[in-house]
Amino acid sequence: MKTINYDNAAAAPMDDRVLEKMLPFYKEHYGNPSSGHSLSLVPRRALEEAREQVGDLINAEGRDLIFTASGSESNNLAVKGITSVNKKKGNHIIASAIEHFSILNPLKSLQKEGYDVTLLPVDRNGLVDPENLRGAITDQTILITIQAANPEIGTLQPLDKLVEVAREHNVAFHTDATAMVGWLPIDVQKLGVDLLTLAGDQFSGPKGAAALYLKRGTRLAPLVEGGIQERGLRAGTENIPALVGMGEAARLALEEMETRAAAVSSLRDSLRDALSRDVPHLHLNGHPDKRLPHNLNFSVEFVEGEALLMKLNMAGIMVSSGSSCTSQALKSSHVLSAVGLPPELAQGSLLFSFGRNSSDEDRDYIVVKLGEIAAQLRNMSPLYHQFLKEDKLNARVQ
Amino acid sequence: MKTINYDNAAAAPMDDRVLEKMLPFYKEHYGNPSSGHSLSLVPRRALEEAREQVGDLINAEGRDLIFTASGSESNNLAVKGITSVNKKKGNHIIASAIEHFSILNPLKSLQKEGYDVTLLPVDRNGLVDPENLRGAITDQTILITIQAANPEIGTLQPLDKLVEVAREHNVAFHTDATAMVGWLPIDVQKLGVDLLTLAGDQFSGPKGAAALYLKRGTRLAPLVEGGIQERGLRAGTENIPALVGMGEAARLALEEMETRAAAVSSLRDSLRDALSRDVPHLHLNGHPDKRLPHNLNFSVEFVEGEALLMKLNMAGIMVSSGSSCTSQALKSSHVLSAVGLPPELAQGSLLFSFGRNSSDEDRDYIVVKLGEIAAQLRNMSPLYHQFLKEDKLNARVQ
Repeated sequence: MKTINYDNAAAAPMDDRVLEKMLPFYKEHYGNPSSGHSLSLVPRRALEEAREQVGDLINAEGRDLIFTASGSESNNLAVKGITSVNKKKGNHIIASAIEHFSILNPLKSLQKEGYDVTLLPVDRNGLVDPENLRGAITDQTILITIQAANPEIGTLQPLDKLVEVAREHNVAFHTDATAMVGWLPIDVQKLGVDLLTLAGDQFSGPKGAAALYLKRGTRLAPLVEGGIQERGLRAGTENIPALVGMGEAARLALEEMETRAAAVSSLRDSLRDALSRDVPHLHLNGHPDKRLPHNLNFSVEFVEGEALLMKLNMAGIMVSSGSSCTSQALKSSHVLSAVGLPPELAQGSLLFSFGRNSSDEDRDYIVVKLGEIAAQLRNMSPLYHQFLKEDKLNARVQ
Repeated sequence: MKTINYDNAAAAPMDDRVLEKMLPFYKEHYGNPSSGHSLSLVPRRALEEAREQVGDLINAEGRDLIFTASGSESNNLAVKGITSVNKKKGNHIIASAIEHFSILNPLKSLQKEGYDVTLLPVDRNGLVDPENLRGAITDQTILITIQAANPEIGTLQPLDKLVEVAREHNVAFHTDATAMVGWLPIDVQKLGVDLLTLAGDQFSGPKGAAALYLKRGTRLAPLVEGGIQERGLRAGTENIPALVGMGEAARLALEEMETRAAAVSSLRDSLRDALSRDVPHLHLNGHPDKRLPHNLNFSVEFVEGEALLMKLNMAGIMVSSGSSCTSQALKSSHVLSAVGLPPELAQGSLLFSFGRNSSDEDRDYIVVKLGEIAAQLRNMSPLYHQFLKEDKLNARVQ
């Protein structure tokens, strides 16, 4: 059977060149970088090289990165670590309403501990208004955390303007850039962010390797305490093979970024145009142009999302209804409700995420299949028949 | 140059059979187990199989494990997660004085938050007295955390008796069994522990994969919050290749445990006996027989530890002065001071940790080299010359 993966945000195939770099660290160079003898030398050097490579991708110095095991861990470390060291300074945190759950759930826990949390609304395209941010800041505000790009609807925030507002008020700014790093240029120096989350598996690197950028001089409490690894900010024996893999993936992503972004955005646009032309009643979600190059999200009107996913899957087309971290929970997306999408549209939403290996050879097949499946499901939908009836009535009246 | 690794506790070569099992999950089966389509199926099944395999190693059911990225993370999750949900019940925690820093440092942080922490002393062999534990429990005690085996001096605690005391008082019991799991049988059902930490890299598995066993019905707060992975107790995309690797390593460790333990303990005893015979002024640390089969720790009197390590390293012999998580910090070991070893002995301590690949072919070389190096260093030691003078005096007096 055909297997077309358009769910690269959930899991993309790792670059073979990355695995090649990792293997020696599973075999001969298995040493612990913290050891006091020669077996530590090659792994230690490799760890520092990976740090530089990942740093280059966001124009940070390697030593300003804390390596972690996932974007979720980096996000938790940022939110809990910053609030923990600034307890005496204030108890107010600002985030956007469309953050990932690894931001929102820690914030819920902090609320229970007595913190005030403001979730900024977004407009129908998913944008946070910098003026809203300005208005939300109080003298108690100790952290602003707003994502660089939304992994579900692809919207890119006006980060520079948002960071500027934070700077004016001297509040620490964290951005979850997991969905963006590796696909679009991001420069932490120029932006002036204090903390930034990235994850290797989002740019053809291995799972289990991620990082938190921490601006020099910013104080942070560790989440995993113990040994002296990562300057005491994240204990535990370093997962060298995975970190080396992320380093190599970062190097390749930086080198090939323009080509990759151009390729996926062209595939994305071409699929979007073909679908818009051939499948009626599609509703595009997210910003029309301020969006990730590899992200396409739309709602299929009059269709129940789970059935759609299942039938697409049976046709070999792998897509998602949103974040894979929550899709099993079958809840409707907090992102789509934040942009004001009515539930009947939100429940039929599809996320196509493209990857380094995506090609256009399957485009026509997808368009045809999606058209067929949508028609089939709509045929069983009372809402759709209701719509047709009203549509006819309207036509007669006009 | 010769490279003899007797520092397997810091990093042991991964089993080739383990890497073999991991590779397909870096290649074709790269999917995300949380996805709602077919690409999730093989990884999801593999994840559950790994869970069963790791569970079997400690006689737990797979579903009672929370997968993490390191023993340190599991320890932090246990300590912080249990205290967090039991805030209203009490504020007292008991640990042994020789726990790993991934227990001790979280406890220090909790102390700053107002928790009372009792560190139980150990005897000269490193044993915790169950009567001391009984005496330390108050009506405020919400957690007891005592390691199964010490990774530095190898001492095995009387876990069954310690857990029994905890049971009598209905206090949650966590054991850091990182150094023990995979080498000696441990049965969580029979022991009745509430939580147990283990790490794959300690039994020839990959780095970046560990687990926390959580007894059914025990409440725990997550450390990394976000998605619904690991029953909501540890968010973040699962590192499938590493977890599959830990599963296979667990399966092999269970199958080969007796042979492996017999092999390393025989190597260890033979090295210990040869050293005791041929190198004067060695002091064995840890319990004479209640100890890990692959651990040998002794102090070389009249010798400065760092110089010793460096010279052994130059001779191709890789050993450690203790925990690799702290060896770079050059602090003297909290474990050795807890067992009452005077600083002049503690600073010249050596940890030999054996592994699956250790053999006895280098034993004589090690004994000769260590003898030479000790003699050389002692020759430069004022303390040693002082001792010789006194020894001669004593001989004359007698």
